Amino acid sequence: MISSQGLAHLSGVTSAQVRKDLSCFGNFGKRGLGYQVARLKKEIRLILGLNRRWKVALVGAGNIGSALFSYKEFRRQGFDIAAVFDVSPDRVGQRLKDLHILNVDSLKPETERLGLEIGVIAVPARAAQAVADRMVHAGMRGILNFAHRKLFVPPQVALRNVNLAVELESLSFSIKALNLRPGRKARR
Amino acid sequence: MISSQGLAHLSGVTSAQVRKDLSCFGNFGKRGLGYQVARLKKEIRLILGLNRRWKVALVGAGNIGSALFSYKEFRRQGFDIAAVFDVSPDRVGQRLKDLHILNVDSLKPETERLGLEIGVIAVPARAAQAVADRMVHAGMRGILNFAHRKLFVPPQVALRNVNLAVELESLSFSIKALNLRPGRKARR
Repeated sequence: MISSQGLAHLSGVTSAQVRKDLSCFGNFGKRGLGYQVARLKKEIRLILGLNRRWKVALVGAGNIGSALFSYKEFRRQGFDIAAVFDVSPDRVGQRLKDLHILNVDSLKPETERLGLEIGVIAVPARAAQAVADRMVHAGMRGILNFAHRKLFVPPQVALRNVNLAVELESLSFSIKALNLRPGRKARR
Repeated sequence: MISSQGLAHLSGVTSAQVRKDLSCFGNFGKRGLGYQVARLKKEIRLILGLNRRWKVALVGAGNIGSALFSYKEFRRQGFDIAAVFDVSPDRVGQRLKDLHILNVDSLKPETERLGLEIGVIAVPARAAQAVADRMVHAGMRGILNFAHRKLFVPPQVALRNVNLAVELESLSFSIKALNLRPGRKARR
């Protein structure tokens, strides 16, 4: 068993927030006893859609793409990169571990053949919208975008953006804000 | 000049939100005319702490770390990775472009010598808190954490987490949620 206080400590939010958030999805806890860990874990995986495996297409086999391909946590959480695509003649046909890098022109037939559902975009910003359009056309249900560009997709396709440079920008903003706090000596 | 409607279209929020957000930081626009692009850009860079360059220490020279090192957008936004550290004897002493990978034991003296201010953690989850502690001890002002682990740092240090697996989990959640919408045929 774990209490909402225990979960709050691990996740860095308040115990009231833990109880409130979980209650949005069902009645998982027992008053005074807390949550049964095994059941809670299973329920959360179900809520997040992690009670199954997802087949992922990676488009872009450069630095970021290759790193994502090797990132073990994806597979551990149920996301299998089942095909890798690129546009560059230098990369198409090369191997990335057990996969051959395919030409992005074959995205639609491969998506249908392999049952790919999620697309990961790891291409330069200027190419990102065209790749997103191809993914939508191929029937992808969700897109994870690493390119430094706002993308437009139809409402039936889920989209998440990971902008690594913006993360550093948020950090420099926070550092500035911390230094401006009353009682702290501004460092510059 | 650009209108708040124009900014809203580019950023995917409402024009009211654009005006409200910018008004938190000052009076940048002219009623009926909009915002002067060059001035707005300069003001936003100032707000975000991007009117200067930041020296960054990267700890972890594996897949993710190497990809981050090669990620050009960081430098473009003012973040220079000035030192790379690792713990593995296989990696320490190797070169990553123009830098030698240093032993993480030298983090504190190198931080002082080079004036490093931001630390990027790209190590396995189990090692992440120890690296964060070293960064705090070395005097880093901000930490960007890529490890799959909640970290604890003192309040005077800014912390941001990028959890790549959680991004895919959020996406699978959104895909599920889209399929549950009324009027859509559930696909599974």
